[in-house]
Amino acid sequence: MINNKLPKIWYGGDYNPEQWEKEIWDEDVRMFQIAGIDVATVNVFSWALNQPDEDTYDFTLLDAIINKLYENGTYVCLATSTGAHPAWMAKKYPDVTRVDFEGRKRVFGGRHNSCQNSPTYRKFSGLLAGKLAERYQNHPGLLIWHIANEYGGSCYCDNCATAFRIWLQERYGTLDVVNKSWNTRFWGHTFYDWEEIVPPNALSEEWGNDNTNFQGISLDYRRFMSHSHLECYRNEYDAIKKHTPDIPVTTNLMGTYKELDYFKWAPYLDVISWDNYPSLDTPYSYTAMVHDLMRGLKDGQPFMLMEQTPSQQNWQAYNSLKRPGVMRLWSYQAIAHGADTVLFFQLRRSVGACEKYHGAVIEHVGHEHTRVFRECAELGRELNLLGDALLDSRIEAKVAIVYDWENRWAVELSSGPSVGLQYVDEVHKYYDALYQLNVQTDMIREDADFSQYDLVIAPVLYMVKPGFAQKTEAFVQAGGTFITTFFSGIVNENDLVTLGGYPGELRSVLGIWSEEIDALFPEQKNQVVITKQSGALNASYTCGLLCDLIHAEGAEVIAEYGEDFYKGMPAVTRNQFGAGQAWYVATSPEPALLQDLLANIISEKNIQPLLKTPHGVEVTQRTKDGKSFLFLLNHNAEEAIVETKFENVEDLLTGELWTGSIKLPAKGVRVIKL
Amino acid sequence: MINNKLPKIWYGGDYNPEQWEKEIWDEDVRMFQIAGIDVATVNVFSWALNQPDEDTYDFTLLDAIINKLYENGTYVCLATSTGAHPAWMAKKYPDVTRVDFEGRKRVFGGRHNSCQNSPTYRKFSGLLAGKLAERYQNHPGLLIWHIANEYGGSCYCDNCATAFRIWLQERYGTLDVVNKSWNTRFWGHTFYDWEEIVPPNALSEEWGNDNTNFQGISLDYRRFMSHSHLECYRNEYDAIKKHTPDIPVTTNLMGTYKELDYFKWAPYLDVISWDNYPSLDTPYSYTAMVHDLMRGLKDGQPFMLMEQTPSQQNWQAYNSLKRPGVMRLWSYQAIAHGADTVLFFQLRRSVGACEKYHGAVIEHVGHEHTRVFRECAELGRELNLLGDALLDSRIEAKVAIVYDWENRWAVELSSGPSVGLQYVDEVHKYYDALYQLNVQTDMIREDADFSQYDLVIAPVLYMVKPGFAQKTEAFVQAGGTFITTFFSGIVNENDLVTLGGYPGELRSVLGIWSEEIDALFPEQKNQVVITKQSGALNASYTCGLLCDLIHAEGAEVIAEYGEDFYKGMPAVTRNQFGAGQAWYVATSPEPALLQDLLANIISEKNIQPLLKTPHGVEVTQRTKDGKSFLFLLNHNAEEAIVETKFENVEDLLTGELWTGSIKLPAKGVRVIKL
Amino acid sequence: MINNKLPKIWYGGDYNPEQWEKEIWDEDVRMFQIAGIDVATVNVFSWALNQPDEDTYDFTLLDAIINKLYENGTYVCLATSTGAHPAWMAKKYPDVTRVDFEGRKRVFGGRHNSCQNSPTYRKFSGLLAGKLAERYQNHPGLLIWHIANEYGGSCYCDNCATAFRIWLQERYGTLDVVNKSWNTRFWGHTFYDWEEIVPPNALSEEWGNDNTNFQGISLDYRRFMSHSHLECYRNEYDAIKKHTPDIPVTTNLMGTYKELDYFKWAPYLDVISWDNYPSLDTPYSYTAMVHDLMRGLKDGQPFMLMEQTPSQQNWQAYNSLKRPGVMRLWSYQAIAHGADTVLFFQLRRSVGACEKYHGAVIEHVGHEHTRVFRECAELGRELNLLGDALLDSRIEAKVAIVYDWENRWAVELSSGPSVGLQYVDEVHKYYDALYQLNVQTDMIREDADFSQYDLVIAPVLYMVKPGFAQKTEAFVQAGGTFITTFFSGIVNENDLVTLGGYPGELRSVLGIWSEEIDALFPEQKNQVVITKQSGALNASYTCGLLCDLIHAEGAEVIAEYGEDFYKGMPAVTRNQFGAGQAWYVATSPEPALLQDLLANIISEKNIQPLLKTPHGVEVTQRTKDGKSFLFLLNHNAEEAIVETKFENVEDLLTGELWTGSIKLPAKGVRVIKL
Repeated sequence: MINNKLPKIWYGGDYNPEQWEKEIWDEDVRMFQIAGIDVATVNVFSWALNQPDEDTYDFTLLDAIINKLYENGTYVCLATSTGAHPAWMAKKYPDVTRVDFEGRKRVFGGRHNSCQNSPTYRKFSGLLAGKLAERYQNHPGLLIWHIANEYGGSCYCDNCATAFRIWLQERYGTLDVVNKSWNTRFWGHTFYDWEEIVPPNALSEEWGNDNTNFQGISLDYRRFMSHSHLECYRNEYDAIKKHTPDIPVTTNLMGTYKELDYFKWAPYLDVISWDNYPSLDTPYSYTAMVHDLMRGLKDGQPFMLMEQTPSQQNWQAYNSLKRPGVMRLWSYQAIAHGADTVLFFQLRRSVGACEKYHGAVIEHVGHEHTRVFRECAELGRELNLLGDALLDSRIEAKVAIVYDWENRWAVELSSGPSVGLQYVDEVHKYYDALYQLNVQTDMIREDADFSQYDLVIAPVLYMVKPGFAQKTEAFVQAGGTFITTFFSGIVNENDLVTLGGYPGELRSVLGIWSEEIDALFPEQKNQVVITKQSGALNASYTCGLLCDLIHAEGAEVIAEYGEDFYKGMPAVTRNQFGAGQAWYVATSPEPALLQDLLANIISEKNIQPLLKTPHGVEVTQRTKDGKSFLFLLNHNAEEAIVETKFENVEDLLTGELWTGSIKLPAKGVRVIKL
Repeated sequence: MINNKLPKIWYGGDYNPEQWEKEIWDEDVRMFQIAGIDVATVNVFSWALNQPDEDTYDFTLLDAIINKLYENGTYVCLATSTGAHPAWMAKKYPDVTRVDFEGRKRVFGGRHNSCQNSPTYRKFSGLLAGKLAERYQNHPGLLIWHIANEYGGSCYCDNCATAFRIWLQERYGTLDVVNKSWNTRFWGHTFYDWEEIVPPNALSEEWGNDNTNFQGISLDYRRFMSHSHLECYRNEYDAIKKHTPDIPVTTNLMGTYKELDYFKWAPYLDVISWDNYPSLDTPYSYTAMVHDLMRGLKDGQPFMLMEQTPSQQNWQAYNSLKRPGVMRLWSYQAIAHGADTVLFFQLRRSVGACEKYHGAVIEHVGHEHTRVFRECAELGRELNLLGDALLDSRIEAKVAIVYDWENRWAVELSSGPSVGLQYVDEVHKYYDALYQLNVQTDMIREDADFSQYDLVIAPVLYMVKPGFAQKTEAFVQAGGTFITTFFSGIVNENDLVTLGGYPGELRSVLGIWSEEIDALFPEQKNQVVITKQSGALNASYTCGLLCDLIHAEGAEVIAEYGEDFYKGMPAVTRNQFGAGQAWYVATSPEPALLQDLLANIISEKNIQPLLKTPHGVEVTQRTKDGKSFLFLLNHNAEEAIVETKFENVEDLLTGELWTGSIKLPAKGVRVIKL
Repeated sequence: MINNKLPKIWYGGDYNPEQWEKEIWDEDVRMFQIAGIDVATVNVFSWALNQPDEDTYDFTLLDAIINKLYENGTYVCLATSTGAHPAWMAKKYPDVTRVDFEGRKRVFGGRHNSCQNSPTYRKFSGLLAGKLAERYQNHPGLLIWHIANEYGGSCYCDNCATAFRIWLQERYGTLDVVNKSWNTRFWGHTFYDWEEIVPPNALSEEWGNDNTNFQGISLDYRRFMSHSHLECYRNEYDAIKKHTPDIPVTTNLMGTYKELDYFKWAPYLDVISWDNYPSLDTPYSYTAMVHDLMRGLKDGQPFMLMEQTPSQQNWQAYNSLKRPGVMRLWSYQAIAHGADTVLFFQLRRSVGACEKYHGAVIEHVGHEHTRVFRECAELGRELNLLGDALLDSRIEAKVAIVYDWENRWAVELSSGPSVGLQYVDEVHKYYDALYQLNVQTDMIREDADFSQYDLVIAPVLYMVKPGFAQKTEAFVQAGGTFITTFFSGIVNENDLVTLGGYPGELRSVLGIWSEEIDALFPEQKNQVVITKQSGALNASYTCGLLCDLIHAEGAEVIAEYGEDFYKGMPAVTRNQFGAGQAWYVATSPEPALLQDLLANIISEKNIQPLLKTPHGVEVTQRTKDGKSFLFLLNHNAEEAIVETKFENVEDLLTGELWTGSIKLPAKGVRVIKL
């Protein structure tokens, strides 16, 4: 349990009463009670209030807020407010602002704007976190700490340059190793002195969006930036833990946010929390995948849904309203994938500045008689009914997909073979196939233990880090099934090619050699023609993007290309390796192939889908103490019927008992206790 | 009359003889006489010639130009040449150049390039204007002053930052009021010292095109920039007026140019002048609207058409030739909407630099035997015939549309609900509906007196400033009809939301509450289904962009949505309020709905369209001393017939008398004296 | 012969063994021998290795490389390695890095990154070239020098500004002439001191891609930049020639690369070499045109194909593999147009950094058993068979197309009449028409001697430089046929309009006057209606982009416009002038018109196409010592048959004898000895 002071699914969200007169606060707490809101995330952007100048700290307002909330039944998720430095600090200590990708020194503005290696930022953010922890360590309303906010962005200032050189010295030891690791003899970039190394930005090696002359330095700068942010976080974490070693600490992550390697962060978060902002056109399975990824950060431990909007966004191009029922449906989708909280951004809609058109539980009209509030209050009521039934329950999966931030950076920093290749999209294609099959999937780190899985899929695992190949071979040897794809096994952790034939270190387990990689224009297609017909497979499927021209070296050819000069060359192979099998999908096929292929493999591996459901009805299962809870989520705009063999099972949300066919209203949800 | 030295519609335009050898001047004046040209705008970009260094002023060439023109029958519109500073000034006094949005200090180049708050620019531009006024105060050829040129653009230098802080102090008094007005507690931006406030640009709060973290500071910076430009203008204005208190002074405006609040400028211009550059695909009604807006700046006072091209542009993507007759047609369109001059850019086409492919009366070939020159000369002949008949005549309108620059800034700076919302386009939709109905319309400021109108329309009046709601209530109470739309009444003058339910201060007069605002994707549509059928209205219409989800609170529902979860909610309402009615159009409908709706309302209000004309035939009417002049403008490429009940009315351009059907050639014009 | 040490078509390419351990070198030379590779371009990016600090030069590794190669039968094209300065130099002497278009000082990174006017760069690059020449002057493996690499890019630093002012002083003598040449009285830009002139970039006169306020300064800056690069080249050239006066020197050009005026460079290159990187969708005739342009730089002298990829690119959006046979086909296409070398980038694919996905003879797999290697080895075998048969043979052409870099700059810097006008595309339209007709064409400089040609075409010759018109008149007078197009004859070398009617100085020879120029929107079309039917011409053709509205002044009207208000005005004219004819094509027509028109003209001039071939089969002919070699290149993916009247002619590649029909496999090549 995140904190057993509140043994239920936490419900609430960001709350910024400092933006309002105190008279409003009474209205707020009145409505929180109507809505069943029991957690408020406070103090997120209040540094300038907490510390009006270098020497003064003033928590009077924060005291009043926390007390007011607690007296009215609402706990706090207490933020350290270091997500945006005060204006006075930017003026007095310019090192606190960043130098941007274009080399421009920023002045003051925005948020998430502090230099990651600013001595000023490190000093004052740590001080503030410590003072907050000291002050509120014994407050009964304190549930959890929330450090800063949505870490992100890069800086290229001289302080960062210096810190980067130190980081490099620690990583590589000598310049000679740096030169080799970055292959600096290419284009005559050999460094003879650490001081010659400068951050890769628009004034040096990079341009536009993820273009670089040297993947090595660019990869390392991303590692270093992620590390520098983490150092900022840990600086505050340590300051807090001195006072409240038992209160959990988190910071809100952003799903597949590219710039931070969250797997590296996870050990330092007591609980994962994240902000979920799908658009009207985000696939449901994409959101599901990101929930699973967040759950995977700490190996399945339940996470917090830290933010979602009750109604609409403001920063999307076209900010659709969430249709009736959708907020509830998506809240349960989070729980269904492992969330133990449902929190909103935000509880009261702000009156000015750029987020005033971001939806909130309490809208600008200020009262409870709105569609949005009514839906929030209804959900609050349900979550109260659920109590602690679901808390700490886990999701069991026999299938895992490897997701790796560094691999993504390397894929997208590479020049060639195709600008169309997007790592996350390829991962999602595999996830979606499993999702459509109702197979529960873990999203795991590349250095995870595979042994608990029957099937491990590593789409576009371009970068193979030390130990991965050996681990994979052992996994397959022991009977596991491994699937990887085109453009895998190409480089090591420094983006240096593994010589001797693609897919490099994976060549042995896969039993193939990839001789060439063709890049197709967006409108160009080839065919995957099945040569070993079985199970669900059709005769052929379309494919595109990239086509590896492979040779089977022991692997069995399951499908071959249907067109072009490499017609007849293998497109899908399966290699028997020890007691297991290793598959290679040499191109990016239409979704149907992956669904059909995975249906076969799942069936062979005796992995049981949870249920068979109509299209658009998602199903997951959480388990605790031997009890299972089945979530049925109807994403359709029409009623759906799920056929089951259940008898007299209870829907926890309504108390209804179901046998056989279970009816779901449009956008409806059922939580069935098995 | 602008200046009764020349009691006719002035005809001529920009003339830059300083770019030519004097031998050419003789040819010029010869051709001016052929073309009936009697006004030349001179000295627009001659600062470097007028003042070759800090201490020297040399008007020899300008003397020669003005004298040459005057001796040959051409008056001058005398510019102060401060639209571009000399190169020597940029080198010697770098404060004269701007710092751009990206924070880059500019060196030298372009035009309209001086920092608005540069002490150097203020000093030398004022000095030069004074010297010119002193020198030419008694020249008989001097008709009018033209200060600088097309003011525009922004600067973000330290001088501007300092001036901005002073401007803020004058506007707000204390930092506490600034903080409240900008809602700086959002994202912890509280200012404790005036020096902490920096201009909002790419180094601080803004990015891209009109994106900002804080609407408050961004709005104020736009106000401040418009004001700073105006200060530059007034600086020269005052210097001139010391010597020539009776010669009118203007500067050339640019229609709906976004950055300057021309309503704030108008009091300081003796006569409005503007530059009209429609493209081949600009709707005729758009040009008409902008003429009406320029006329509205000084409450209906006739204005100057200061620039238009005789043939083609150079800076458009595809610079179409004006087809035969079009230059004449568009010139009369200006007159038809209140212009008392027809001036070109320019009289002779320049031989080099970026405007050499901008059309001119005298083309590069250098003689009068061109299509363009012949058309110009024919128009010159006609304008001579017209004499002073039309001068100072006014346009009478019972319908007004509110146009507000600050509202536009606020709408387009807002983050959400839709990037598709363009204020001017929504205003134009209403204008166009009235235009198609041949109803004359005034474009008015938001703080105008409504009492002279029967119908006032305020499309997307997002920002409601103090007094507007009360004035509107009084207007409707007294029997007026008021129409506004979705996304109106949302914020105050600082972009702070008016709490208590949209449309804020307008909620009472409109008798509705807008609970939510849905943003539709570009391809998404809904339906407006008419529930109170009357007059011209069809059963239903499509709509898109934004859909307010409103509740009638006393208003009558005229139409409702036809689709989605808000099907059946009101889409058009009419509220009886005192003796009048207030309408709310909750979405952006197809044009047909607005035409049909306004046809009904016009009819109910007994507002008579001027005439019924075929599609593409525009009609307006100017009136003076009880006499009316009807303009018929055939924008079609084919002949058109207008049916009238007139008997023996005279076409001033041809002297023909018409009864009943009036025939217009393709692109033809008639000015009928009634 | 480029160097008679190696009297055959040189075969090889870029080779960077310094990026590899020496063990790999043995494998390399073994495979070079298999592939028939006899030339390696080395030391291209090794400055940092050659000179690890200011005082040290170390050629140990280079010695080893050159010796290793020579001992194994491979000569070297020896680069000076000055295409990228060392990191230590950027740190110690910041003047060596550039200031970019945005005004930003660059730090270190990339290549082709040295300031063209950096004293540091000039000093050290000259020193290094001299030391290399001194060291290797007598090495038997040295075939040719390769200075720097792919010169390009611009700098705007203070050193460049100073050098620009000196360059201007030399070009113009006085500021008064500069002011006149740039028409600086426009927008009041008169300069009174040389120091007031600043480079035209985003901080002064230019913005975006080729937009400028003043074409004059922008043109001159491009001339100056091209000249500055050339000075860098000549600096090294002179240093080398001191030691090896008899070894040829080149640098690798880039075809139609816009920024360098290669016609100005050609006199200083002993042999032209260039890098050919077509994409999957580059028209074959475009590549052919560029080969001809490169051949034209030195008046027909054979050139070097310095770089092409054996398989795929890395920097294109979608890097398609070269299909089987295509590398060979395109290699012979180069030879067919005058190349005497076939060189690749590169011989071994690099292991890291941004070009690792650029194809190479030796792929990452590292052995010879790849499709790519086999194709390379097969071509190596053929080139050995060809021996010196083709070396130094020439291409004979009676038709020439004028290509002019300065004209291109001026066209694309002009504001108006259409953003759609791309000089190279219009040139290619004419080239392609001749290509489809199998008529050999020379691409020539504007100041070339026309007398050897029967037909000279100068598409969009917007800028007419001194002497061009007189030369053209003499050419036509003497019986030549001249063709030019819309938007020609407009300006002089400073982009100042030639007054008195377009097409300016060409008006007399063409016998027309162009009164106006209409720009059509992309979807807009007009018709070219043939009025003088003859030969291959259809009744009418479509046209677009720009339409000159011309009057025949002695010229015969061959075709007229079919639509719009200029329907009936001439669209194509032919003027009899002395013994010859001058054509004007007043618009940009569909390709069919140009093919049909040129077919007629060719026929009238008795210019014989080489052969009639099926579509997609290219034919060229090289001649030496009275012997002719006919190249047949089948670009189709299917077999093709070429009908000839040959009897028993030999295919040099296979030794086969052919009579009558010659069969070509898909992508096949024949070199027929006549």
